[in-house]
Amino acid sequence: MSEQSIEYKYLSNIDIPSDLRKLPESALREVADEVREYMVDTITKVGGHFGAGLGVVELTVALHYVFDTPKDKIVIDTGHQGYPHKILTGRKNTLHTIRQKDGLSGFLKRTESEYDEFGAGHASTSISAALGIASARDLLGQDNHVVAVIGDGAMTGGLVYEAMNNCGVQQKKLIVILNDNQMSIAPNVWALSNYFSNLFASPTAQKIRSNIWDMTGKTGELGDRIRTLAHKIEDGLKAVLTPGMLFEALGFNYYGPTNGHNIGNLVKMLQSVKDMNGPVLLHVITQKGKGYKPAEADKQFLHAIGKVDKITGKSTASKPSIPLPPTYQKVFGEALTEICDTNPKVVGITAAMPDGTGLDILAKKYPEKMTDVGIAEGHAVTFAAGMATQGIIPVCAIYSSFLQRAFDHICHDVALQHLHVVFALDRSGVVGADGPTHHGVLDYAYLRIIQGMVVMAPKDEQELRDMLYSAIHDYTKGPVSLRYPRGESQGIALQPMKSIPLGKGEILRSGNDICILAIGNMVYPALKAADILSKNGIEAEIVNARFVKPLDTQLLDELAERHTYFMTVEDGQIQGGFGSAIIEYLAQNHPGKRIKLHGIEDIYVDHGTQQELWAELCLDAPGIAAKTQEFIHSYSTIIA
Amino acid sequence: MSEQSIEYKYLSNIDIPSDLRKLPESALREVADEVREYMVDTITKVGGHFGAGLGVVELTVALHYVFDTPKDKIVIDTGHQGYPHKILTGRKNTLHTIRQKDGLSGFLKRTESEYDEFGAGHASTSISAALGIASARDLLGQDNHVVAVIGDGAMTGGLVYEAMNNCGVQQKKLIVILNDNQMSIAPNVWALSNYFSNLFASPTAQKIRSNIWDMTGKTGELGDRIRTLAHKIEDGLKAVLTPGMLFEALGFNYYGPTNGHNIGNLVKMLQSVKDMNGPVLLHVITQKGKGYKPAEADKQFLHAIGKVDKITGKSTASKPSIPLPPTYQKVFGEALTEICDTNPKVVGITAAMPDGTGLDILAKKYPEKMTDVGIAEGHAVTFAAGMATQGIIPVCAIYSSFLQRAFDHICHDVALQHLHVVFALDRSGVVGADGPTHHGVLDYAYLRIIQGMVVMAPKDEQELRDMLYSAIHDYTKGPVSLRYPRGESQGIALQPMKSIPLGKGEILRSGNDICILAIGNMVYPALKAADILSKNGIEAEIVNARFVKPLDTQLLDELAERHTYFMTVEDGQIQGGFGSAIIEYLAQNHPGKRIKLHGIEDIYVDHGTQQELWAELCLDAPGIAAKTQEFIHSYSTIIA
Repeated sequence: MSEQSIEYKYLSNIDIPSDLRKLPESALREVADEVREYMVDTITKVGGHFGAGLGVVELTVALHYVFDTPKDKIVIDTGHQGYPHKILTGRKNTLHTIRQKDGLSGFLKRTESEYDEFGAGHASTSISAALGIASARDLLGQDNHVVAVIGDGAMTGGLVYEAMNNCGVQQKKLIVILNDNQMSIAPNVWALSNYFSNLFASPTAQKIRSNIWDMTGKTGELGDRIRTLAHKIEDGLKAVLTPGMLFEALGFNYYGPTNGHNIGNLVKMLQSVKDMNGPVLLHVITQKGKGYKPAEADKQFLHAIGKVDKITGKSTASKPSIPLPPTYQKVFGEALTEICDTNPKVVGITAAMPDGTGLDILAKKYPEKMTDVGIAEGHAVTFAAGMATQGIIPVCAIYSSFLQRAFDHICHDVALQHLHVVFALDRSGVVGADGPTHHGVLDYAYLRIIQGMVVMAPKDEQELRDMLYSAIHDYTKGPVSLRYPRGESQGIALQPMKSIPLGKGEILRSGNDICILAIGNMVYPALKAADILSKNGIEAEIVNARFVKPLDTQLLDELAERHTYFMTVEDGQIQGGFGSAIIEYLAQNHPGKRIKLHGIEDIYVDHGTQQELWAELCLDAPGIAAKTQEFIHSYSTIIA
Repeated sequence: MSEQSIEYKYLSNIDIPSDLRKLPESALREVADEVREYMVDTITKVGGHFGAGLGVVELTVALHYVFDTPKDKIVIDTGHQGYPHKILTGRKNTLHTIRQKDGLSGFLKRTESEYDEFGAGHASTSISAALGIASARDLLGQDNHVVAVIGDGAMTGGLVYEAMNNCGVQQKKLIVILNDNQMSIAPNVWALSNYFSNLFASPTAQKIRSNIWDMTGKTGELGDRIRTLAHKIEDGLKAVLTPGMLFEALGFNYYGPTNGHNIGNLVKMLQSVKDMNGPVLLHVITQKGKGYKPAEADKQFLHAIGKVDKITGKSTASKPSIPLPPTYQKVFGEALTEICDTNPKVVGITAAMPDGTGLDILAKKYPEKMTDVGIAEGHAVTFAAGMATQGIIPVCAIYSSFLQRAFDHICHDVALQHLHVVFALDRSGVVGADGPTHHGVLDYAYLRIIQGMVVMAPKDEQELRDMLYSAIHDYTKGPVSLRYPRGESQGIALQPMKSIPLGKGEILRSGNDICILAIGNMVYPALKAADILSKNGIEAEIVNARFVKPLDTQLLDELAERHTYFMTVEDGQIQGGFGSAIIEYLAQNHPGKRIKLHGIEDIYVDHGTQQELWAELCLDAPGIAAKTQEFIHSYSTIIA
């Protein structure tokens, strides 16, 4: 890569933070500029998360300058703000591999660097982890510093509050840096941010003010001099009525707000809070995308970028000659909006991902029918449960791996009360570049164990429409889930939505040698695998199972009459998943069958493109065909 | 029951809240006294949750008096404060059946009463649910009131914060009543409560004060009169510096704190906040156990009671002639303490259940080695993950059904990073009187699907000790879980702790007709079932599987050589659970076996004693024997 040949005055000689700490403080402004330049140069060429990292360049430089990392521990919440940290901690020369297969992770990762204290792709974990690290330090009698860096977007997550409350009780020495870029992934979801920006208009401040005026008014004999004094007192109050009160209430010492792009100031602030006892919160104001014009202008877009022109910010990715099919997300958003056109009881709920999930399409047409609760999946689900008690039909569109945070809310608040809430699990299966924190590979398993839950997955975008329609209009006795992958759909022509009978699969291709039961996004690859197998003399019957729960036991009974060999295929973990449901039924009811469960073994899948990962996992057509042959041959050998 | 024959001046004529609302306000004091009397009379005779309900007698009467229930919706957080509500909403005459099989639930339950808007055995859900109900109301164009009642104990849960934040953003009309009895289930876990009680000593207040004195000091020429004025201002500030600031910051209008036992005052307050727009928080101070001397004196004990003497509060349950074996909780607490005697890296973590889990035993000996984080299971787990990164070995002792709240924290923060955290799942399997919200029947399933997780369950208290020892000292490469039931252990003599080889089961009894693979608390009943079966001519081999993951595949291979019939037995849901793991292995690797999974079907189990429930579910010895015979005979018929 050409970046590596560019000579930077300071950065070229900084490999790890101890190199940085050899420099005079006066050099840090230039170091920060170089880090920013390097990040823009590299990421515009290869793509990646962008705005958050650019906003914390000065803060990251200052942290590694003031603290003795890795002896001192810096925990960075949600690693997509971690790119400058990667540049300064030995990964400058590999930054161009970020989010690519076998390259750097897009998030922090403990196995990638000793400077990555705690990996996180899900938001709001840093303060809990940092408090754990601080407690361990005290138990072990060590004296290092512990710092958590958390963006305001992550502040809507309840875990932050649980952690801060516990910090206040435990009073361990620890520094929390609130990186307030006044911009979570989607704006206007944090009530406190309104409060911060309008603090002196708050009811308490108003009361204090009128109280002072009452007091001074009653001493009329002193006249204007008292009123002048009152003005001064009011100004003085302005200085102390800060967001700090809130954090103080939780037991923190509060400092700030302070400009997060003035590096000299940051260094001074960090040095002054460094040796304080008990929990300290330093409130830093930053600008997302800082220092890169196109990012400053369009912050939402530049959460993450593809390859772009460095000057204009316009995409440089080559346009496909044929237009790509719409994403599942777009199809979903449009289908839900279409349903809302006629059914006034349906609403959409997202946890900070209106654009990612396609719910922005609904919000544009019916703003009152879409609620973004912020990064708060648990609340999203219990809030939906409350709505469902009143006959509203809420559709919670949440990424599969993020919905793991609401597991108990689904169990205890929705399913136990048989409430009709629809869960649209976006980004199910392997998701690609975001890697293991984001792969939605547990959902078949964690949803099917919940009593009375309907669990299904469409083979294509029309079936997504039909399943959404049925989930809302037909399966009304309790919770319903459907899961679909990230990215482009199959590109078929869309038809009007229609009902799918509950728990009914469909046979897509006949064949006598083996029955392949596929589900969701594995159905088309299984069909293609059947073509490959056919060329090799194996005729596979292909079933689109559609449902993990309830299973189509009637169809399974029929298939059992015809077949000895069964293979299940799913884009998810094998243990407990779709195949597990099938084998529970088949093996108990039709003993003697040869069954193979194909999916993801009990491992964590790394990052890479979806195509690379499916190929590696034998979950593309050639892989499925190979696994099928291997399975049949294993028995032929034994039997022969 | 004799209670029903006692004549109460008012209560005898109150069946539902509309009866209450016919009374003059002046009668409410007596009504409250009668409700308290009735509750004490009934619950001392039959046992139940006690302190929380006694604290909200006046509040409950006032709520049903001021609001038009059930048109107006009252959501009560964690139903154990709901007994007075049950008395006033048609369940007075059945209160004596509470927590007994086929009797009233100990919590609120939608299927039990139209006045129970939202059931909850897990804490902190009420504000989310109430906001959902309020949103639904607005969407449907209705005009009812929505009230959430939440205790301070539930305020440590992050869901509360997610919900309050979202209330602040949405600005729906809704009333939250903070029932502040300054006493969660275990005290001193809510940072804000310290702040509330010491508000004027807070740093902000100090700054305001010194600010005023600075200002006034500088106007020395006015002398003492100014200083007198400053004192007055300070007093004025005292009046406005209230806990309200915090809730205001979240967008609530705050009222209170107010005395929750002065019913006239409560009615007035409720009437005045009733028609306000936007979210309102009313802060009510109550006393847990109010009005019942023994409960006021020992609040911790009187969270829930058995049958007690009404006057003294002493237990009236008949003492067993032979002393009962120690509970699993006591054995666990003592074993962990014993391990901490020699291993300085081990600590215990609880989420508000130090007594319930037996961790109070550890805390008594080593207070610095036990952390109670409050009702905050997610934080407990991520906090533990942080500790584990530093080489500490945290043991999280959390009730099985509550740990569902930390599912993603286990996946994303612990397992993905291969951190060595030990999960001790207390109250696994059916728990008895607490019922479906508390049954820990999903844990085998939700834990075994997590990559790399060890999942095991001891057959008795010695194996619990050995598994805990092994989890801490031997299985150190990642997360480890062990689960055990509520209540008494087997009563065997305890031995020194020893290692159990990872993933190794044991054969406890030989037999040629069928192999029964049991796990955890089902091992002894399975052994007894084998005796019954033997009398009926069926010889069962009994295996204590010990591990759900990793499975003892070597043993399974050996067993497959000897057996055709296999049955699994678990105190948990069948789908995805222990049997599911076994059938995944056996059916793929040893086709042709006859396998039956025995456990809980895809249903919610109601409340009752554990013995009643196990009998009903065929999970006691006779039940297991019957299921075994039924299974074998089903094949004999087919084969014959």
